[in-house]
Amino acid sequence: MSIKQLPIKEFYSFGNSLIEKTRNLILQLWQENKFATELKEDKTPVTVVDLQAEQMLREIIQRNYPTHGIIGEEYENTNPDAEFQWTIDPIDGTQNLVNRIPTFGTLLGLRYQGKAILGFIDIPVLDILCHGALGMGVFCNNKKQILKDLQSAKLEHTDLIGSSTLDVFKRSGEEEKLFKVMNFHPHTRIYYDCYAHILAITGSLAAMVEFNLKIWDFTPTEFLLQEAGGKFVYLNKWSPDNPRDLAHAIFGKPTAVDLIVQELKY
Amino acid sequence: MSIKQLPIKEFYSFGNSLIEKTRNLILQLWQENKFATELKEDKTPVTVVDLQAEQMLREIIQRNYPTHGIIGEEYENTNPDAEFQWTIDPIDGTQNLVNRIPTFGTLLGLRYQGKAILGFIDIPVLDILCHGALGMGVFCNNKKQILKDLQSAKLEHTDLIGSSTLDVFKRSGEEEKLFKVMNFHPHTRIYYDCYAHILAITGSLAAMVEFNLKIWDFTPTEFLLQEAGGKFVYLNKWSPDNPRDLAHAIFGKPTAVDLIVQELKY
Repeated sequence: MSIKQLPIKEFYSFGNSLIEKTRNLILQLWQENKFATELKEDKTPVTVVDLQAEQMLREIIQRNYPTHGIIGEEYENTNPDAEFQWTIDPIDGTQNLVNRIPTFGTLLGLRYQGKAILGFIDIPVLDILCHGALGMGVFCNNKKQILKDLQSAKLEHTDLIGSSTLDVFKRSGEEEKLFKVMNFHPHTRIYYDCYAHILAITGSLAAMVEFNLKIWDFTPTEFLLQEAGGKFVYLNKWSPDNPRDLAHAIFGKPTAVDLIVQELKY
Repeated sequence: MSIKQLPIKEFYSFGNSLIEKTRNLILQLWQENKFATELKEDKTPVTVVDLQAEQMLREIIQRNYPTHGIIGEEYENTNPDAEFQWTIDPIDGTQNLVNRIPTFGTLLGLRYQGKAILGFIDIPVLDILCHGALGMGVFCNNKKQILKDLQSAKLEHTDLIGSSTLDVFKRSGEEEKLFKVMNFHPHTRIYYDCYAHILAITGSLAAMVEFNLKIWDFTPTEFLLQEAGGKFVYLNKWSPDNPRDLAHAIFGKPTAVDLIVQELKY
């Protein structure tokens, strides 16, 4: 089937209903504020909120689209050879969740033959939802997003760059990259996970630099940001054919992305 | 007059009314979203929101307490020899304001003979207000704050440290200090101004490291954090006798503060 023939509206509406359900679940667990936390092998935390939200999403997707694949943070891949692949990060920013910082959220994406066609980033506690589907525009809290480029050919003092923590760069021994970005633009901030992705999509950040991303971390952002007019550049050879590979990426306003790519000499 | 004889309740109620007025003004200007931005000498931005909010606060304070002093970010000191000194930062986080990131806020404090007796941190767009007066407890959105120490004698993977941007450390040539903190705890985040101070007061951050602070940046935080049971340590010799001097400080949960102070070898 060609992409144009896909029932994108149906998937979009289905995705919206999924997000509504995870949001309700997450808000309930957030208010109860009684959840066990464990450290995973990579020393990042996981809670029952992560597990319950992903379980729920998986069950509903499998019931409605039993032939579709699912790649999620907390469980094994389902139907890894399917043409449709849903990507799920039930809680991006668990470290914030456990510290009662309300900027964590849910990331949901859909790829068809490797190409992203749908994306959702939802921040339940802050009541911010960005979503979009192929050819249908990008909306954050119902406002259509069109990302403007920088006003000049350089980063100004008022421009902000976002980045992941040093911990993430250390995983692949690339901490120098972060220090280089910070020295290049001392207004770099080390930000909040998927909330920062929304800030890149809406143009609040000039660009965002992230290393060691998993497919569920960046599928919605890559899709929404590009649909809104932004630029998303991989710094390594990443392909959806190897969905468990890690990606390094810079994304945001096109000129800002180019400047950082150049500075990091890729 | 001894501190115990001061009409603290009256000042507290007056401060609350000031914050209500600045919040209304700021929300109105934020919604209109049409304000000129200029860069100050130190290359940080200033907008009409900063100027109008500080002007309004100064006028009301001078009308009600004509003998009190006022130290604010945007204008010259008023009554510099007075025993009572109000500290005003109308918009902490102007760089966020101009980029439409809603975590900026207003800082208001009152010192008597150098000692802080009142503090307010208000984040209008996020509807978060922390306040407190001497001997009357600290409240964030009406919830009494009691800061718990770390659960163990070291920082865990789930603990977060906050810091100002590299730009701020560079002002006094101390960028190595920031890199040292990041290497010590790679989960360090470079955060949002006064919103991060609230995160330290509520215990979401284990500690916060900030260099080159001005008196209006830290008076409310120092007061509220200590009243809630936290520790606030100056890394340089700062005294309210020289209110225009810059302070370097670490503040938060006592054990986390001690660990970072030790790491930075002060």
